[in-house]
Amino acid sequence: MTADVTADARELLDRCDELAAISSLPVGIERVYLSPQHAEAHARAAEWMAEAGLTVRQDAAGNLVGRLEGRSPGLPALLLGSHLDTVPDAGRYDGILGVLSAIAVVRRIAARAATLPFAVEVIAFGDEEGTRFGTTLLGSAAVAGAWRDEWWELTDCDGVTLREAFERFRLDPARIGEANRAGEVLAYLETHIEQGPRLEDLDLPLGVVTGIAAARRMSLTFHGEARHCATPYDRRHDALLGAAQAVVAIERTARSLGAMATVGRMEVAPGAVNVIPGTATLSLDLRAETDAERDAALEAILAELATICRERGLTLERHDTHTAAAVLCDARLQDAIGEAIASVGQADATGSVPRLFSVAGHDAMAVAGIAPVGMTFVRCAGGISHHADEAVTLDDVAAAIDALERTVEALARTQASSSPSSS
Amino acid sequence: MTADVTADARELLDRCDELAAISSLPVGIERVYLSPQHAEAHARAAEWMAEAGLTVRQDAAGNLVGRLEGRSPGLPALLLGSHLDTVPDAGRYDGILGVLSAIAVVRRIAARAATLPFAVEVIAFGDEEGTRFGTTLLGSAAVAGAWRDEWWELTDCDGVTLREAFERFRLDPARIGEANRAGEVLAYLETHIEQGPRLEDLDLPLGVVTGIAAARRMSLTFHGEARHCATPYDRRHDALLGAAQAVVAIERTARSLGAMATVGRMEVAPGAVNVIPGTATLSLDLRAETDAERDAALEAILAELATICRERGLTLERHDTHTAAAVLCDARLQDAIGEAIASVGQADATGSVPRLFSVAGHDAMAVAGIAPVGMTFVRCAGGISHHADEAVTLDDVAAAIDALERTVEALARTQASSSPSSS
Repeated sequence: MTADVTADARELLDRCDELAAISSLPVGIERVYLSPQHAEAHARAAEWMAEAGLTVRQDAAGNLVGRLEGRSPGLPALLLGSHLDTVPDAGRYDGILGVLSAIAVVRRIAARAATLPFAVEVIAFGDEEGTRFGTTLLGSAAVAGAWRDEWWELTDCDGVTLREAFERFRLDPARIGEANRAGEVLAYLETHIEQGPRLEDLDLPLGVVTGIAAARRMSLTFHGEARHCATPYDRRHDALLGAAQAVVAIERTARSLGAMATVGRMEVAPGAVNVIPGTATLSLDLRAETDAERDAALEAILAELATICRERGLTLERHDTHTAAAVLCDARLQDAIGEAIASVGQADATGSVPRLFSVAGHDAMAVAGIAPVGMTFVRCAGGISHHADEAVTLDDVAAAIDALERTVEALARTQASSSPSSS
Repeated sequence: MTADVTADARELLDRCDELAAISSLPVGIERVYLSPQHAEAHARAAEWMAEAGLTVRQDAAGNLVGRLEGRSPGLPALLLGSHLDTVPDAGRYDGILGVLSAIAVVRRIAARAATLPFAVEVIAFGDEEGTRFGTTLLGSAAVAGAWRDEWWELTDCDGVTLREAFERFRLDPARIGEANRAGEVLAYLETHIEQGPRLEDLDLPLGVVTGIAAARRMSLTFHGEARHCATPYDRRHDALLGAAQAVVAIERTARSLGAMATVGRMEVAPGAVNVIPGTATLSLDLRAETDAERDAALEAILAELATICRERGLTLERHDTHTAAAVLCDARLQDAIGEAIASVGQADATGSVPRLFSVAGHDAMAVAGIAPVGMTFVRCAGGISHHADEAVTLDDVAAAIDALERTVEALARTQASSSPSSS
């Protein structure tokens, strides 16, 4: 690894620290969409983009975009980036690392811009986490032309609508369509912390993301009978007992089928110490590498739940709240990223680079609607994310910058040889 | 069964219907301590007591007491009764049946009062359910001299303290001690619906209560790690999964040891759909026929929970909120009740009368502090209680009145032969 990329990585980590200080919380990090902290973080990033040689603008959705023209003006863009918004009590790298490594790479290649067969743009999405309005990927959905009119009426916890928040941020809701970049994006590359421990387990800094998990979310309500706790066992229809068995069965079933299931909520009614619960509602978040695997896991889980309900005399009510198809990273981009990682000396002893799918969602999911996407994962300590303990190492960040630069160069070579304008 | 006792039972059921109309709810029954409905129900019951030959007063805790003197004034009293307050959306027999059957029996024996070696009193306790102030048995605790000063500051859901409620009901808190009947009560007999299905299963109308269950209540909090749902299974410390396994283990363990366990509450934090729960808190209500059985069941449950926590890397925090020793019904009273039930033709084919312990609490628990107590259970449909579907049959109520009258007569004979005043 060259000394200068290590210096770039050190600067990047310093910039992460600087952004971490821009928070709506007295202790801990929180920056939400269209907030003063959003404006402040984007203003600082805009300075870094300009310093790297990018022409900077804010798009119609409040995303920050910096553009480096290629060998001629107006070429389709290779888009690099991620998001700068956070969950509450966030870490300092989730999203941020992807934006700042893109800025670092552009500064490294800016002098060679006249040789590039595409423009390079860095984008900092204003909303990926969905913290403020409860709906994720608002920034990247706008760029992908997937904005939905019903979102304007979403409200934050103070009752402010998304429309009002746009206006207070001096954005014109009527112009949201201008954020749509369909047809102008050649490809999208995103570098992101893994938010899982697989790279750490493999003792490797970088991995190629094969795709982003298919997901489903639903609420499952078990209906039994609220009865006095003197009711003998064989007369009980205890909704919580059914739900508790379900939680255990969901883990066992999903795990055996290679899917990831999380029950994050559980509510019980009437909720009196001496009354057998009449209803129990749980949330199910189910993810798998492919839609088919996700649906097979769901089918198996629902069969288990039907058995539990039959045995306990309960009924099950299901409300689907979210369905997302798996997003596959582009095969050509996966190969380019993998070769770049190997070329910077970060393959394993056999020369191969790990390929992993992302359980968490990312901006790339939305951008995939208008362009091929590729993602690189960076090892993070203990797989911890969405937490103050989120951590990366200097060497890993340097490797990430190095690999992203090599990926851009490789795509430039491929594009130059395949593009009609190069002949 | 004689025609007149069936007529008394019919009248009793009519009176239950009449009291059911005295409710603070537009639909459904709710009468709470020291409310206008309490006053109205007690006023009506006072008329019935007076008509039965009782001298009626309200005691210092708002309980209604009617007294029939025995062969000389001022004799210790045989106390018969139960409560007229209800839970929300109550049935029309829980408590009420015990008060009204006592009034019916007194009317039947009033003409023979001059032969009785004790006074007979009927008591309608003002609070057994604890609906308004969250603490049960307020009425019977006052009679048992077990009133606690800290109760004065208990508040209802409108913030009214128990002290204020006393004053608004024109009761003087300073005189609460006058409700204490220690030394004046010979024995207490309570007739109550079973609130369970065992008599129904046995196809018998009446049973002798052997005692009231020992109980413990506690909250159990499982502490794990709140992590993003992308965290692989082997890195998770999912507090809800631990709690769910606990709910299942609690049922299995308690059931196998003959105890009754109910988990009525479950709260999960942070409670986000895509975050692995960091903490999960459940309530445990554990009851058994004896203190030793209850404690053995708790020990076995806690051992199971320790295993679950060890396997999942969780820690368990426990807060005990309530402990009640089992209350044994007096052996002599149990025999007297059993013989009375048999004498009215309600024993089984082998001539025996079922003896059962009460899982639910009753006024007899408190009165046991100052006098021997005996209880009779009356079959109720499906074991359902605390619900509008609570139901008893005319014949069963007639049998209950008949058996209670015979019990009083038997105690009069025993008392006459054993009391110094009879010699």
